[in-house]
Amino acid sequence: MLELRNRIRKKNLHGRIKHVEDVIPLFKNGMNIGWSGFTPAGYPKMVPIALADHVEKNNLQGKLKFNLFIGASVGVETEDRWASLDMIDRRWPYQTGKNIQAGINEGRIRMGDRHLSMFAQDLGYGFYTKDNNGRLDIAIIECSAITENGGLVLTASCGAVPEIVQIADKIIIEINTSIPSFEGLHDIVEPVNPPNRLPYLISRVDDRAGSPYVRIDTDKIVAIVESDRPDNGRAFSEQDDTSEAIANNIIEFFGHEVKAGRLPRNLLPLQSGVGSIANAVIGGLAKGPFSGLKVWTEVLQDTMLDLFDSGKLDFASTVSLSFSVDGFKRFYDNWDQYANKVMMRPLSIANHPEPIRRLGCIAMNTPVEFDIYAHANSTLVGGTRMINGIGGSGDFLRNAYLSIMHTPSARPTKTDPTGITCVVPHVPHVDHTEHDLDVLVTEQGLADLRGLAPKDRAQEIITKCAHPDYKPLLQEYLDMATKDCLARKAGHEPQLLDRVFKMQVNLAKNGTMKINNWEI
Amino acid sequence: MLELRNRIRKKNLHGRIKHVEDVIPLFKNGMNIGWSGFTPAGYPKMVPIALADHVEKNNLQGKLKFNLFIGASVGVETEDRWASLDMIDRRWPYQTGKNIQAGINEGRIRMGDRHLSMFAQDLGYGFYTKDNNGRLDIAIIECSAITENGGLVLTASCGAVPEIVQIADKIIIEINTSIPSFEGLHDIVEPVNPPNRLPYLISRVDDRAGSPYVRIDTDKIVAIVESDRPDNGRAFSEQDDTSEAIANNIIEFFGHEVKAGRLPRNLLPLQSGVGSIANAVIGGLAKGPFSGLKVWTEVLQDTMLDLFDSGKLDFASTVSLSFSVDGFKRFYDNWDQYANKVMMRPLSIANHPEPIRRLGCIAMNTPVEFDIYAHANSTLVGGTRMINGIGGSGDFLRNAYLSIMHTPSARPTKTDPTGITCVVPHVPHVDHTEHDLDVLVTEQGLADLRGLAPKDRAQEIITKCAHPDYKPLLQEYLDMATKDCLARKAGHEPQLLDRVFKMQVNLAKNGTMKINNWEI
Repeated sequence: MLELRNRIRKKNLHGRIKHVEDVIPLFKNGMNIGWSGFTPAGYPKMVPIALADHVEKNNLQGKLKFNLFIGASVGVETEDRWASLDMIDRRWPYQTGKNIQAGINEGRIRMGDRHLSMFAQDLGYGFYTKDNNGRLDIAIIECSAITENGGLVLTASCGAVPEIVQIADKIIIEINTSIPSFEGLHDIVEPVNPPNRLPYLISRVDDRAGSPYVRIDTDKIVAIVESDRPDNGRAFSEQDDTSEAIANNIIEFFGHEVKAGRLPRNLLPLQSGVGSIANAVIGGLAKGPFSGLKVWTEVLQDTMLDLFDSGKLDFASTVSLSFSVDGFKRFYDNWDQYANKVMMRPLSIANHPEPIRRLGCIAMNTPVEFDIYAHANSTLVGGTRMINGIGGSGDFLRNAYLSIMHTPSARPTKTDPTGITCVVPHVPHVDHTEHDLDVLVTEQGLADLRGLAPKDRAQEIITKCAHPDYKPLLQEYLDMATKDCLARKAGHEPQLLDRVFKMQVNLAKNGTMKINNWEI
Repeated sequence: MLELRNRIRKKNLHGRIKHVEDVIPLFKNGMNIGWSGFTPAGYPKMVPIALADHVEKNNLQGKLKFNLFIGASVGVETEDRWASLDMIDRRWPYQTGKNIQAGINEGRIRMGDRHLSMFAQDLGYGFYTKDNNGRLDIAIIECSAITENGGLVLTASCGAVPEIVQIADKIIIEINTSIPSFEGLHDIVEPVNPPNRLPYLISRVDDRAGSPYVRIDTDKIVAIVESDRPDNGRAFSEQDDTSEAIANNIIEFFGHEVKAGRLPRNLLPLQSGVGSIANAVIGGLAKGPFSGLKVWTEVLQDTMLDLFDSGKLDFASTVSLSFSVDGFKRFYDNWDQYANKVMMRPLSIANHPEPIRRLGCIAMNTPVEFDIYAHANSTLVGGTRMINGIGGSGDFLRNAYLSIMHTPSARPTKTDPTGITCVVPHVPHVDHTEHDLDVLVTEQGLADLRGLAPKDRAQEIITKCAHPDYKPLLQEYLDMATKDCLARKAGHEPQLLDRVFKMQVNLAKNGTMKINNWEI
């Protein structure tokens, strides 16, 4: 309690300190709720968990449902538990967890899947809560501290907090006293709606555009709750041979581009997604020939600490620190070493096309699959089943200097170790188009598509990226489609619509995408 | 000749004035060529036409082929004639004309279809001419004048000229003395590659970011040719009842948004495509209740002059003036009235996500078709046959405050006046994704998709936008797909991949998309 009071430096707010049970009555069925948090870091725990306990204890499943707006995913002990208790009606713009995914794909939870940069601004414009006069009823924000002037010092992420607090009628603060204060690590600009917006004056990754605090109307704070719960740290994705082969292909390509004069010797600011391939790439860079690196990304994982330690990474801008429990310990224990090389920014800056294009980021992300013309599916397995959402991949891939997608060339099914090809004739759902992607990579090789027309692109992708088990099938499809479409004088980008998804249909029926032939 | 010399104010360049025949020997088979020009305005005519005459006269068809890089489309008397003479190998990033389209769809011309903002920068980065060390061999630029310092004053468009002259080894200038000098109307920033780029300090549509001239290394000018050929003015697209109904739906929506406080009373900067619907919208605004309007767009058509004359339009920023012959006369005859309300900018500014997002543009474009989940096809009929290219539609629709697509709900085939539905279960080619679009409009109605999850979105689109002839078929598909996918616990965005393109296949076979049923 002493530490809590010390963290609330605007003293007249001490009177709003409450026990978590006291805020439960503020929540009514059907409310629009915004949380802090991003890919699970910096999200509120005390109030969401208390609400879940309240629902569970009083058998209120389905009777206390909310529309939930959060920068991206948060810990499974919060939103996923809410989903298991039927506490979520609408969820924007991203999520993780088995229960919430089941709810979405079984039709119980309505999810909106938007580019993260667009989510932040459209939420702020009131587009998602039109029926509620563009407002959120309650915001729940995890903070490190509140300054003398009532500025909010956030914790391990920025997410969409600036927009959420702006359109919220009431704000509940969770001050997390179990972790150090992150004061000074955030860069926040108060959102202003068009036509009165100004440029972000960021020309270098370490430039600051705004202030270290989120400025709010403190009258809206209805409760301040102490939190002693740490983030549910991200488990580390193990690297494997496939990931390392992909990473090697990418790092070799960087070397080639530097040699050709198309990349500076310290590359350009790196954006890297999450998972084993991203870890392998960052791991490869830590051992690689490039130094003076910069990172402009959404999420820092543990491997980024290795890259700092290698002496090759100068600065990292991110939306969140998504470390494992060990990673956080390492960060806290070596605070002085890391903290002045890291800045956290909200989605409205970090994912905004403006700095991404200006800085010339190198974007690297993993899709579900891509097709022979370089359209990629990042969200819907089989074209219909939601995994997590598009996240920021579109923000980065559309605006990067180099847009790279990487995936294993094939994945196993229950009956076939290469039953799924990640290189298909036509993705059943498109999140990134042929107009956006420059380079596709698998463990088989790297296809540099810059300057290639569709048919040349298809040949390059099949040759360089496809798994040998699928190469003949894909080549046969391309040849057949090309012949058919050119004969019909409609062959810019050949496809055969009467059989284009034959591999996917076969997978659903027979557990493998290996079809016998392309006959209808 | 006197006028030509007067226009070349850097006097030592007078020695480089040449007859057009003298430049022909500069051109060799296989060269990479860049032109000025954009949606046909401000493009070179003398040299391209002389080259075409040369090929025709000397039977050089297929023996003098070029890779052609131009901001967008240019007059049919140039690129389309080149196509008919087999003078084009590669063409980036957009085109118009029957011969060039035939060449592309029959496999003789390789076209690259990129977002225009990305085309400009990637061309400048050398991505499209990697095999030529990132260089263009020759640039041909139409100019109004050359300043004392060697700055190029462009004509009726800016296109990708700043990038083209930067990477060109040789530059040929066509000074068009048959039209007034456009000096002062352009806003040019010299392209700088990452990591050294700076913000565009544009916070209002009429802010200037750069200089009125294109700065070049004048040593690269190998010839200056006088031009007496005007632009091949754009024919005016007639409005019809369908276009007017669509326009009315949009203008009513604007009124609703102003009332709800989500748009200011003078709206936000408008981007509007070309064609009859765009003309109807602009015509509707000229008669409508909104004043103090601003335009931030790619192309000004004749109707924009009407909007100026109505007193409701304050300022327009554009890439080109794409008037009819009469429209240009009107512009020239009333120069003082229009010229200080217009600024022309290159793709690298006008189409850049940075100003589009900051200003909060309202983007309005016509697709080939859209689907029930709000993916749109803007480029490939039947998923394979190229029309023109994506142009700047993706630059605007991804980054706008409001992203609107408008189309008639149905189109005729030879045998059926509503044989094609423009609302389909799944577009066969995706240029704009569900993550990007806010509002879809047909003459049937307007679907406001903001805040809707996929299944709700599908219902809204079918109800509001589909043609009555197709409504039952689309509803049946949605219901059937929903039932099937939810049962498989894969129903975030229901589709039936085994029959999703049945309407399109039926169109190819039977000349209508009206299928009897959805059975396989």
